[in-house]
Amino acid sequence: MKTQAFYLKIISTLLAVGSIVLWNACTPSHAAPASPGNAKPYNFIIIFADDMGYGDLGVYGHPTIRTPHLDQMAVEGQKWTNFYVGASVCTPSRAALLTGRLPVRNGMTSSVNRVLFPDSQRGLPESEVTIADQMKKAGYATACIGKWHLGHKQQYLPTSHGFDYYYGIPYSNDMDNIIPFRSPTGYFEFWKSEARKDINTFNVPLMRNTEIIERPAEQHTITRRYTEESINFIKNNKNKSFFLYLAYNLPHVPLFASQDFEGKSPRGLYGDVVEEIDDSVGKILASLKENGLDNNTVVVFTSDNGPWLVMNEEGGSAGLLRDGKGSTWEGGMREPCIFWSPKHIKPAVITDIGTTMDLFTTFSNLVGVPIPNDRVIDGLDLSSVLFEGKAGPRKDMFYYRGDKIYAVRVGDYKAHFITQDPYGPNIEEHDPPLLYNLNVDPSEKYDIAADHPDIIQQINEVVKAHNAKMVKGEDQLQYRDNNSNTNK
Amino acid sequence: MKTQAFYLKIISTLLAVGSIVLWNACTPSHAAPASPGNAKPYNFIIIFADDMGYGDLGVYGHPTIRTPHLDQMAVEGQKWTNFYVGASVCTPSRAALLTGRLPVRNGMTSSVNRVLFPDSQRGLPESEVTIADQMKKAGYATACIGKWHLGHKQQYLPTSHGFDYYYGIPYSNDMDNIIPFRSPTGYFEFWKSEARKDINTFNVPLMRNTEIIERPAEQHTITRRYTEESINFIKNNKNKSFFLYLAYNLPHVPLFASQDFEGKSPRGLYGDVVEEIDDSVGKILASLKENGLDNNTVVVFTSDNGPWLVMNEEGGSAGLLRDGKGSTWEGGMREPCIFWSPKHIKPAVITDIGTTMDLFTTFSNLVGVPIPNDRVIDGLDLSSVLFEGKAGPRKDMFYYRGDKIYAVRVGDYKAHFITQDPYGPNIEEHDPPLLYNLNVDPSEKYDIAADHPDIIQQINEVVKAHNAKMVKGEDQLQYRDNNSNTNK
Repeated sequence: MKTQAFYLKIISTLLAVGSIVLWNACTPSHAAPASPGNAKPYNFIIIFADDMGYGDLGVYGHPTIRTPHLDQMAVEGQKWTNFYVGASVCTPSRAALLTGRLPVRNGMTSSVNRVLFPDSQRGLPESEVTIADQMKKAGYATACIGKWHLGHKQQYLPTSHGFDYYYGIPYSNDMDNIIPFRSPTGYFEFWKSEARKDINTFNVPLMRNTEIIERPAEQHTITRRYTEESINFIKNNKNKSFFLYLAYNLPHVPLFASQDFEGKSPRGLYGDVVEEIDDSVGKILASLKENGLDNNTVVVFTSDNGPWLVMNEEGGSAGLLRDGKGSTWEGGMREPCIFWSPKHIKPAVITDIGTTMDLFTTFSNLVGVPIPNDRVIDGLDLSSVLFEGKAGPRKDMFYYRGDKIYAVRVGDYKAHFITQDPYGPNIEEHDPPLLYNLNVDPSEKYDIAADHPDIIQQINEVVKAHNAKMVKGEDQLQYRDNNSNTNK
Repeated sequence: MKTQAFYLKIISTLLAVGSIVLWNACTPSHAAPASPGNAKPYNFIIIFADDMGYGDLGVYGHPTIRTPHLDQMAVEGQKWTNFYVGASVCTPSRAALLTGRLPVRNGMTSSVNRVLFPDSQRGLPESEVTIADQMKKAGYATACIGKWHLGHKQQYLPTSHGFDYYYGIPYSNDMDNIIPFRSPTGYFEFWKSEARKDINTFNVPLMRNTEIIERPAEQHTITRRYTEESINFIKNNKNKSFFLYLAYNLPHVPLFASQDFEGKSPRGLYGDVVEEIDDSVGKILASLKENGLDNNTVVVFTSDNGPWLVMNEEGGSAGLLRDGKGSTWEGGMREPCIFWSPKHIKPAVITDIGTTMDLFTTFSNLVGVPIPNDRVIDGLDLSSVLFEGKAGPRKDMFYYRGDKIYAVRVGDYKAHFITQDPYGPNIEEHDPPLLYNLNVDPSEKYDIAADHPDIIQQINEVVKAHNAKMVKGEDQLQYRDNNSNTNK
């Protein structure tokens, strides 16, 4: 007869093997559903691509850009299909994400310059409160890695806006030499010329905190280096709460991929670049798992605006959406967006409206830091959708160009009061506005204004209420050396 | 001290619990990778939608059509992104799938009529060999459930073409009353009229085998009934090998959804219809699991041609692809395509070229039935991609309209020799052809012919070799009562 010890050993082995087998069996499986009993996730990572379009990921329909990590992230998390940025170009879009406010409120949009330039004198006002400021109030470690584009002078840099650490480029990767930027025409002509094929044409600096550490920034390796910096930040702060804002400066032109990716994508160089970002996202998620942080972190992936279509094959795709970067048609401002937090966010496709501004409010509430009450915050709290599978709070979306409302969405319907070529002078005003049902007609092909005066009336009232309370901030983008304003 | 029986009971309980827990833990997980040691799958199901576009599924990028079952099927199986049909309209596309041959070879395409009509006199020639004929040679049970559209007279029906059983409508769901079909203009005018809002306008019959059992076919419930018939067929043949060709006649207009789906999709009625098909696919896969057949069945989901864009909101979306049904631009002939067989097909996104014609050859080879050698078969065997993760055999794709080559793809490149409005008379010939790199430029926006005379030369040689061996079949579509030819 066997001894008690013998049986106990078998039982303990079975229990151990069971755990291991279960662990392996569950690894590639779907996340457990969120339940109210779960503790809140406490780390936050926002991964922000640059000029990547709605249609540029596999799981958003691109046929030849291979994005297995983002596809998997979407399957394990929430894939949002009506997620917007605060503006159709860089600077105001980034300001919106970081402050939770429409850029028209804080002067980060303008009728003179669409973005900040290397000869811009100002940046995001010091009086603005960023997500990083909010997280600092809760004792978080904070880092901005990647492209900033909210002012390159010291008082405007990330380290002056709530970030403990900054590593990245202060404005777009195509800026400096600045001559071609004097006018959009000059820029697009430059872009067609041979000159831009010289890598040294792009003299953008790489900074650590407030110091320039490399110039021009070596862009073939820049995505990889951002990823490595991010993984280091995660490791170094694994025992604290942290907020990481990781803003890749690609696939904005000029495009660069590292040796491991260049020439690999069937989509060409643009595909190489997106596939390297996809791989990087995979590495970030893997590092969370390695450090035991995947159950306590929310990761959001999105992009700053639609694809820069005038760049042809070097620009991305808005998929079935109309137009791209610079435009207030959907392709300019609707972006892929994936929320991932295996323990807390149940896999789903979300058709509710969300915006990057909502991250400010959602994350502030999650960490219990009050939303500033001395200013208008446009962000809404998306927690009910993310963690409880309930309907979202957002019913409207304002599409500003500069300091003017071009279009407004209320529920399913979007009215265009003004339309304009993204980079052309052809402005058309519409009275009555063009009207589209975006859920039925996401490509904005069938104007139904004539059939729905009631809906136009309803949208007009929303606009009226919005305008009545609007206090526009002073245009910060107008101040440039040499008074050389453009409108790229 | 505990007895031996006590410990044995604990051990046996642990083993049992372990199995149950493992089973549950694994259910939603990814499929096991295929290995050469696995037996071949032996049942085949082709699910064919009608007029559904490349962009109409969630996993192919649609923002508001919710297709969780097809999305999941794509995640568990192979999602093909360069998969084509043999023609951009119904009849020839279906002939291509069933015979593995370009429709120009068997007269199922024509310069006079684009498809068969209720007053057509002929159908798929009896001399043609279908996939069902091939499966019969291997002793399979075979069924065609859904839309046929290869001849409604007895000698052309599924039961004369290798199918044991037929349940469905013999041509499109908008045909009969046939008057408007005398000309495309008449048809599109009819479509805008009030008359078509009367459900009784559509007098299409529902058949079982060779008998009409209902007229007009009740289309609100038709998707559900096709699904039920399919599940019955699966159950009844669970102990045999079977081939099911399930051709839903929706989302071809007129659109109908059952009570459970009508009014539910944010995308409107078109979305309701696709969501009902998605739900049906879920039920088919579930029935395979219930009957223990999921490990021995290959299921393919695709559609017969691109979205019918002229139907506006009642037509689908080709996503980022150009144009739709009736066109030789990509939107007309590239389709979503998902292959699913959990035990045999490893999850992947496949960018290789495939066509519906390849199913004939692939399935014939899998069951060991020789490919007919007395005729040209255009299908190629996709097994190496499906089961071994190797590169696919197909390097080219011919885009015929009627009996003329309009475009040819060789590798990444597609040359358009002729382009035409899908339903208009505006024919343009191109010499040199328009040339696009489809992997880099899936939307066919940037003609690169001027830079690549070498590639055009190479494509010309492929066309020359193809033409040298082409023997066109007699046009079967030209024969109609009253000699009333149209070209819808």
